[in-house]
Amino acid sequence: MSEDLDQRAAPLPEAQWHALLEAARGARERAYAPYSHFHVGAALLDEAGRIHAGCNVENAAYPEGVCAEAGALSALVLAGGRRIVAAVVVGAGTEPVTPCGGCRQKLREFGAPSLPVRIADAQGWRGEHTLAALLPSSFGPQNLSTSPLPASQKDSGDAS
Amino acid sequence: MSEDLDQRAAPLPEAQWHALLEAARGARERAYAPYSHFHVGAALLDEAGRIHAGCNVENAAYPEGVCAEAGALSALVLAGGRRIVAAVVVGAGTEPVTPCGGCRQKLREFGAPSLPVRIADAQGWRGEHTLAALLPSSFGPQNLSTSPLPASQKDSGDAS
Amino acid sequence: MSEDLDQRAAPLPEAQWHALLEAARGARERAYAPYSHFHVGAALLDEAGRIHAGCNVENAAYPEGVCAEAGALSALVLAGGRRIVAAVVVGAGTEPVTPCGGCRQKLREFGAPSLPVRIADAQGWRGEHTLAALLPSSFGPQNLSTSPLPASQKDSGDAS
Amino acid sequence: MSEDLDQRAAPLPEAQWHALLEAARGARERAYAPYSHFHVGAALLDEAGRIHAGCNVENAAYPEGVCAEAGALSALVLAGGRRIVAAVVVGAGTEPVTPCGGCRQKLREFGAPSLPVRIADAQGWRGEHTLAALLPSSFGPQNLSTSPLPASQKDSGDAS
Repeated sequence: MSEDLDQRAAPLPEAQWHALLEAARGARERAYAPYSHFHVGAALLDEAGRIHAGCNVENAAYPEGVCAEAGALSALVLAGGRRIVAAVVVGAGTEPVTPCGGCRQKLREFGAPSLPVRIADAQGWRGEHTLAALLPSSFGPQNLSTSPLPASQKDSGDAS
Repeated sequence: MSEDLDQRAAPLPEAQWHALLEAARGARERAYAPYSHFHVGAALLDEAGRIHAGCNVENAAYPEGVCAEAGALSALVLAGGRRIVAAVVVGAGTEPVTPCGGCRQKLREFGAPSLPVRIADAQGWRGEHTLAALLPSSFGPQNLSTSPLPASQKDSGDAS
Repeated sequence: MSEDLDQRAAPLPEAQWHALLEAARGARERAYAPYSHFHVGAALLDEAGRIHAGCNVENAAYPEGVCAEAGALSALVLAGGRRIVAAVVVGAGTEPVTPCGGCRQKLREFGAPSLPVRIADAQGWRGEHTLAALLPSSFGPQNLSTSPLPASQKDSGDAS
Repeated sequence: MSEDLDQRAAPLPEAQWHALLEAARGARERAYAPYSHFHVGAALLDEAGRIHAGCNVENAAYPEGVCAEAGALSALVLAGGRRIVAAVVVGAGTEPVTPCGGCRQKLREFGAPSLPVRIADAQGWRGEHTLAALLPSSFGPQNLSTSPLPASQKDSGDAS
């Protein structure tokens, strides 16, 4: 999440947040959660302005379940997206349903520190965080020597 | 994977296998695999005849990566699908790229024992297995007391 | 699971199976499973004759839970083990509790095709399978170009 | 991570931090990381003063790998521990190796918000964070209706 990659874009128009919210809510209705009965929907906006949604898909072997955010991210990558520009997560309960740590890590691979993540429930918005606020001091590609950046970018700290 | 749920359907027409193969190949081209450089695509046919694709989405924290089959399954569930009717996995290498054990478990939640899973690479088909052959004696919903079946189905062992 | 690595060892003495069973049962009593209430214990025998146990450790974010077999494997590797020689899984229910697909994959990284996996419950043994029978046509290190073999072994296709 | 459960204990003596560091370093030497070549060790202190270590255990199917922190947590739970009192993670590289988001989530199930997490490398300490700082606004048991608390505690909001 290097700051130089983090274009300080203009705030997302509320209409676009609303479209993300609707997508996440629709996704949540499709959740397969027979074990937790905890339904979650997520929606991600990619760098091309497209919205990708996901719902949680549980499994009898609990660790093999897939979170809503992961499903939305798979859709984003499948569509050719490589950057998350905004994220919405919708759940239910007295406490706001923030992404679990695993999903924060998944978002981090494709999101800038300034990535805005909004939380909502049936009543409306419950909060907004940046990714950097949700996953500070993050582990990421910068920790690995096999960086996902092309070698030309990776090794050229001093292109002068 | 109770046998009574397992409708012995007619074999899938080759045209439909071909459509699945094309979807999986297209998905594979979108894979995000900067760590393994191992690109995988998958496509699933649901009970309504719709095709859902996915590619692998890796993460700097390797265990937080998501397999191609998982992405395709998330898309299937998001679309309202609840049953996998056929599956195709496409990879590359000298050895056929079968689904990993985790993905077999994910397929099993939505697939009958007779679910056909075809393996392919750039050259063409490399094999076909049933899910029961890939994951025999499987762990699944039947092992849990909190079954995903509605209580009415679950508890009516003696409907007579 | 190359066959040449698969030493056809003599069958494990029942006394050693019993020690594994006791370890897996003891582990099961420590399981943290407040969400599924499904307690599992596992025990693995390594190449040095040592027994390593594990229990499932669930998480409110279900996919972040860890299976019993995974815990036992972490203990084996931590102790310097690099080979699983025998495995026991203990659960409860009317159906035998076999390892989930994810755990079969984890075992496969360190187990030969002939690795015996026994299943048990409170009453006693419920079955025995080889790893090859539980995870046939497996995905594994042989599929990746970045093989876990040392470079000297990996690249010396023509040692002549 | 409710604050009332969060006993503000005295700071851990440096000797105990040192013991954790040594355990994590020893664990790191046992890491099985043939794919990433990124070796990590972790050590956790439980409520009984016992130290539990773990190393990363990778898998050819990357998402089936297990992080060092997960291995250490499995050992803690197996030993009857139910609370993490201090955590140390040891990696290498120019950037400090903090726990990935998935591991933060795993720690959170057993750790108070004030849980201190220290990061180290071969040269020494690289940082210290509380769990609340690493995983703010966390998802956790409080989000689920099926709380891990015993029913007697859970439902007795008004015992009068």
